[in-house]
Amino acid sequence: MNIELTREYVAELQALIEAKDEKSALRMMENLHPADIAEIYNELQIEEARYLYLLLDPETASDVLVEMEEDDREQFLKVLPPEVIASQFIYHMDSDDAADVIGDLSEDKKQEVLLHIDDVEQAGHIVDLLSYDEDTAGGLMAKELIQVNENWGVTTCLREMRKQAEEIDEIYYIYVVDDDNKLKGILSLKALLLASSDTLIRDIYDSDLQSVSTDTPSDQVAQIMEKYDLVVLPVVDSIGRLMGRITIDDVVDVIRDEAEKDYQMASGISEDVETTDSPIRLSRARLPWLIIGLLGGIFVAAVIGRFENDLKINPEMAFFIPLIGAMAGNVGIQSSAIIVQGLASNSLGLESTFRKLSKEFLVALMNGLILSTLLFVYNFFLSDSLALTYTVSISLFVVIIFAALFGTLIPLVLNKVKFDPALATGPFITTMNDIMGLVIYFMMGRILYDVMI
Amino acid sequence: MNIELTREYVAELQALIEAKDEKSALRMMENLHPADIAEIYNELQIEEARYLYLLLDPETASDVLVEMEEDDREQFLKVLPPEVIASQFIYHMDSDDAADVIGDLSEDKKQEVLLHIDDVEQAGHIVDLLSYDEDTAGGLMAKELIQVNENWGVTTCLREMRKQAEEIDEIYYIYVVDDDNKLKGILSLKALLLASSDTLIRDIYDSDLQSVSTDTPSDQVAQIMEKYDLVVLPVVDSIGRLMGRITIDDVVDVIRDEAEKDYQMASGISEDVETTDSPIRLSRARLPWLIIGLLGGIFVAAVIGRFENDLKINPEMAFFIPLIGAMAGNVGIQSSAIIVQGLASNSLGLESTFRKLSKEFLVALMNGLILSTLLFVYNFFLSDSLALTYTVSISLFVVIIFAALFGTLIPLVLNKVKFDPALATGPFITTMNDIMGLVIYFMMGRILYDVMI
Repeated sequence: MNIELTREYVAELQALIEAKDEKSALRMMENLHPADIAEIYNELQIEEARYLYLLLDPETASDVLVEMEEDDREQFLKVLPPEVIASQFIYHMDSDDAADVIGDLSEDKKQEVLLHIDDVEQAGHIVDLLSYDEDTAGGLMAKELIQVNENWGVTTCLREMRKQAEEIDEIYYIYVVDDDNKLKGILSLKALLLASSDTLIRDIYDSDLQSVSTDTPSDQVAQIMEKYDLVVLPVVDSIGRLMGRITIDDVVDVIRDEAEKDYQMASGISEDVETTDSPIRLSRARLPWLIIGLLGGIFVAAVIGRFENDLKINPEMAFFIPLIGAMAGNVGIQSSAIIVQGLASNSLGLESTFRKLSKEFLVALMNGLILSTLLFVYNFFLSDSLALTYTVSISLFVVIIFAALFGTLIPLVLNKVKFDPALATGPFITTMNDIMGLVIYFMMGRILYDVMI
Repeated sequence: MNIELTREYVAELQALIEAKDEKSALRMMENLHPADIAEIYNELQIEEARYLYLLLDPETASDVLVEMEEDDREQFLKVLPPEVIASQFIYHMDSDDAADVIGDLSEDKKQEVLLHIDDVEQAGHIVDLLSYDEDTAGGLMAKELIQVNENWGVTTCLREMRKQAEEIDEIYYIYVVDDDNKLKGILSLKALLLASSDTLIRDIYDSDLQSVSTDTPSDQVAQIMEKYDLVVLPVVDSIGRLMGRITIDDVVDVIRDEAEKDYQMASGISEDVETTDSPIRLSRARLPWLIIGLLGGIFVAAVIGRFENDLKINPEMAFFIPLIGAMAGNVGIQSSAIIVQGLASNSLGLESTFRKLSKEFLVALMNGLILSTLLFVYNFFLSDSLALTYTVSISLFVVIIFAALFGTLIPLVLNKVKFDPALATGPFITTMNDIMGLVIYFMMGRILYDVMI
């Protein structure tokens, strides 16, 4: 059921909570998907949400917990005793979700919750998963999967699958392993449906499959699943034993997060924030970049200060300061954004850095020529100063070329030395280009005014 | 098999093509995934790629075609006769891929290819799919799916599934329909595996499922699949009949494209480009924004021109022009980026516009206060002019508040009037904020210099 969350709905629910009308409140949430309930919680006070939460049956409650945002979940779990978390919530979760939830707890509470998990197999799975870095395939994978031995027949296989299936919500693929648990291939449900009952698995499985190792970084996992259009990806250890599987829905989150991070970086926001966060948090996420911008601006002021005399004689030079600065920034960001995006989606291809720079140079040459000419025509007819006309247009041309080259080179260099290339698209490069642009502008002005007047 | 594409590999392949050594070339591509082959093609000249392409068996060739980028594909198909496209390539494709490929052809060629498809059912599917808008659920869906009637028993169901499965690569879900083909629910493979053979489908299917209509916009499809962690989503027509299904891999592309588009918009790039595109195309994608930036810069120059006298008397006012402009731009982009992102991921929540603005106002107040104070301290100790010190700091404070409010309001308004809110994050808002900021700065200067000197 698709539900449109409205302010009226939330208000009604709040009234019911106020009146402690458990039955009506529960009825309002009936048939809602856990993701919808988690979304409603975002709109409520924490006490209201907690009240509703404890009304839900444990299975729904667990699902809602998984769907909640991390910081909300922390708030939620803080007041619950470890044995309740273990027996009521963790019990109903898949291993990967359980590991995510437990991983966010404090070290002490984590241990206590783990000790209260009755199902030893599940506890073992969770401990295994917690040992992997969050940003690797190991941190993304779940342990639940259907696996069959290559030496089984179709009938044994179906019987064993029935046993395993009871623990698993969705079956997408059946993994085929050998006696050492090493991953041999994949068995499609189609092949299983079409096979006669006395066929051996080894004769119908497909050995051509993608897999990743537990320590493959998560952005690489995302790239592989995206490129090969995979819905599930098996994860193996260093000697090829099947350890778990990653499903696409977890990877969609990685893709979304990655894209949002680059976008926020380009917009000068340094933490993962949303409009619904508190003003303090929103302010903190933006202040670092603004302070860098401020320092850059102060530095630029000092640079222009060196040209105070030029400005005194030719105050009209000041008119085009913003234009030069803005164009330098715009061109730089355009050039670096395309590199950052290429790095993120792994689509840079095999072009060498030199070829990339040559191409950028060519693009900058064309754009620079067009833009400087436009500006020249404008100033030629409308400005009183021919010296200014020449200074502005020639500087713009030079600045565009420099900004394009810097914009291309800097993210590539950052990436080479293992920094986040997206740093290049923030206020950092804008400020740097501002300074470079204005120095070129004023130097050019000094020369041309000397020559022409 | 995962393959790392290297320059050596491509060079070797090119040498084999040059030597017309078909066998060795084919051996080099053996075991490669079609997506990898498509990637190799990106690195080759079009004639080289076409040579390799015609060596492949039709099924692999079809898959490669589907994986190729749109413009490459167009180049490829241009020289092939319609009957070859129909019988060799389209024949092996799923209906959604086939519709995508055919949809890109010219109107004439499209008709001819359709006429050459021998399988009437497939041709019908493709024609159906072509009738939907590309950016809707209808345009994303495929017709191939497994459907069973609610009145069947498990044995009938398995027999019918075997029949249908021959045409379908992957089975994720089984859809349950009634006698009118109306979608009733979903049958999990797990339920089917666990059921005894005399059970009726109507007793084991799950009627609680998400579906979308053929005209649901694709970004909404992506949001639904992301929110509910779906791998496949059924599509129904206006009276609830099952029309097709959308798989997550197609939606991952939508999510990626959406994120890239917003990112490129924020970076001032107006077309979907990649580093591997030609310089002309790269230049064309950037020029529009640069011209807007240039016009903005010219306008700013005219605005500052109105304050030429002030500048003549107090040339030091020019020093802080870039700082004011840059801070106005940065704050504006920060504010609008967070709104654009919230709109894209549908995570704005239920906060009213007024509440959002109040919050932004609060954030701007805090940040403005901190930044203006920092700047005041710097200038107080290092600048000769107290009037300048006050002018710069007070202007900065006012500018930050205005920029934050504009930055929040503009994408919301754009969205309301059905424009792309991401427009707000490009050079447009930067330029607007530049102008607003400098007018405030010079007006403030006029007042304060008058008062203080």
